[in-house]
Amino acid sequence: MQEDIFIVGTGQTPFGEHWDKSLKDLMEEAVTSAILNSDLTALDIDFIVVSNMLGERTNDQAHLGAMASALLPHRPPALRTEAACASGSVAVHTAISLLESGRAENILVIGVEKMTDVSSEEISLSLMGAADAEKDIPTGLTFPGIFGLIANRYMHEYGLTREKLNKVSAKHHENAAKNPNAQFRNAIPEEKISQSPSIADPLCLLDCSPISDGASAIILSSTNESQIRIKASQVSTDTLSIAERPSITSFPATRDAMDRALDEAEITRDDIAHLETHDCFSIAAVINLEDLGFAAPGRGIRLYESDSKLTVNASGGLKACGHPVGATGIKQIVDLIKQLKSSNEKYALAHNFGGAGATCCIHILERAS
Amino acid sequence: MQEDIFIVGTGQTPFGEHWDKSLKDLMEEAVTSAILNSDLTALDIDFIVVSNMLGERTNDQAHLGAMASALLPHRPPALRTEAACASGSVAVHTAISLLESGRAENILVIGVEKMTDVSSEEISLSLMGAADAEKDIPTGLTFPGIFGLIANRYMHEYGLTREKLNKVSAKHHENAAKNPNAQFRNAIPEEKISQSPSIADPLCLLDCSPISDGASAIILSSTNESQIRIKASQVSTDTLSIAERPSITSFPATRDAMDRALDEAEITRDDIAHLETHDCFSIAAVINLEDLGFAAPGRGIRLYESDSKLTVNASGGLKACGHPVGATGIKQIVDLIKQLKSSNEKYALAHNFGGAGATCCIHILERAS
Repeated sequence: MQEDIFIVGTGQTPFGEHWDKSLKDLMEEAVTSAILNSDLTALDIDFIVVSNMLGERTNDQAHLGAMASALLPHRPPALRTEAACASGSVAVHTAISLLESGRAENILVIGVEKMTDVSSEEISLSLMGAADAEKDIPTGLTFPGIFGLIANRYMHEYGLTREKLNKVSAKHHENAAKNPNAQFRNAIPEEKISQSPSIADPLCLLDCSPISDGASAIILSSTNESQIRIKASQVSTDTLSIAERPSITSFPATRDAMDRALDEAEITRDDIAHLETHDCFSIAAVINLEDLGFAAPGRGIRLYESDSKLTVNASGGLKACGHPVGATGIKQIVDLIKQLKSSNEKYALAHNFGGAGATCCIHILERAS
Repeated sequence: MQEDIFIVGTGQTPFGEHWDKSLKDLMEEAVTSAILNSDLTALDIDFIVVSNMLGERTNDQAHLGAMASALLPHRPPALRTEAACASGSVAVHTAISLLESGRAENILVIGVEKMTDVSSEEISLSLMGAADAEKDIPTGLTFPGIFGLIANRYMHEYGLTREKLNKVSAKHHENAAKNPNAQFRNAIPEEKISQSPSIADPLCLLDCSPISDGASAIILSSTNESQIRIKASQVSTDTLSIAERPSITSFPATRDAMDRALDEAEITRDDIAHLETHDCFSIAAVINLEDLGFAAPGRGIRLYESDSKLTVNASGGLKACGHPVGATGIKQIVDLIKQLKSSNEKYALAHNFGGAGATCCIHILERAS
């Protein structure tokens, strides 16, 4: 806001099932790759922000700021941020504020999650911490259940068919096949999506992002320049429980964050060439495209029906690249930078949300031409 | 750092066992009291930072930023920070950066913890998330165990006696008797401290801060002035495990944060009239006074042996006021403001740490004369 913030290094682990690696191992791998990708040394880092949602439950480990700090020889100051599945992007938002405040010059932002060490029942309940524990858990809802309700309602309101919805995950899998860090690098024919086991009708297994381990890292700087600059960083919130919303087929936090991000960047949405959006479930991608203003209400699926100037989840998205919760918002930025550098386009947008759109955080990146 | 930050409102719940209140109830009570204590309305708040360590485990609830945001009619942007028992002070540090960045003008910082809903075994393991889960948990260590080792070593190095150590908790209980929000408002004779049940030799029950429920809140502003200004905010880190430290009778993160805080405030430690320090265990208070430079190594107990110009934990500290983890760092600031206004002194210092001094965050407050 007050000065230019550049992204001077990026790194990540492959996303997947890392039985042989600890939370710390994953962080270290992402951190090392981000530092090597930059022109800085570890000693240039003067603050660390860690994003993680579930470590206390899945790994008996809180206090990940201090753990990350000890990975560097000089142990810079550190803290952790959390906003459920939006933890990664709010960590970036926090780091940007710290840089803009002048309290730091080179901040390492690390996202990490290790989800495969516990049972799927425990992961399912842990993830419900992103919703309202008092209102939603007693009803028996899980996140697939919440998005199943949303998909049902969306189909009722707009006439989206199950067959058309298949296009979302099929496209994300096709994209992930080209991403060496993706958890699932296999193309899947459209019809196989709805033939996969039913999880929360109408959603099937292949509509759902997976349980993943992984870490991602970026280095932000106010003093070292690079080709990639942060043009906007905006957070918006909504109620935790969908039971308190007037509609469940649109997420107002996305709309609000998008309006403010475009204002901050002083561009229009037509300027955006690459989008990574939060497809925790296939139906979410459709709704997000509408809330972000890339499609009219009920028309989000059209961006999956024909080629568009805008690329959507070229990384494979959460569905096929994987969704280690705390790492996702940062990995979106890592991938968008690759896309901007490869296409020579100017603007990219990362859209990350937590819960059923209860926290939404958007970043707009600009490539210097 | 770049502009003046004022504390324009403070509030808290009493600390204690709140069987009849939820995490949200506690937040709401602290938020309401902070807003009523200020000249602002809820609608003036343009960002919220929530501090909480254990909600995912003890209350099945993550994503507390969005939950707090929904307490206000306009749902401002929000996020949560965590650094174990230093979560509260790093939330304040984060809020200060957001204000200094110009991204917000009036930030509500809320600390909350509800620890009494689960068994003491579960709380004990949850709190070990503040240490190194890989190195410390397998050894069977708990936090009383860690500080028992520290107390033993300190007694060996400096000859502190068990009887002298009794003075710490006795003084904190005496102070808490005057604090209407304290969990334990009873004075306890010195000799009763070491007669209480042994927890981790040489530490007894009355050397340990309790399991507490509670919430605290402050409103920070860059645009609304008040009598109380933030003069310094500094974070420092160390290894999570004490097994990796050259000494366990001093916490270097406190020394580093203190040096930087005094530099930022441009004052000396002799200017400080009131101190709230992190006495999670009695021995910690003794060591903290040395690390903060108010006593030479081995002499920290002297501040409990005679009256001193500096007041130490006049609130009752963690021991007697209570220690709802995420609320503590913010409550220290709430109490220091009361102390400054009552004494007409100029400077006060809040010293909050996480784990065994793995994250230390210090704030210096200035009262306008």
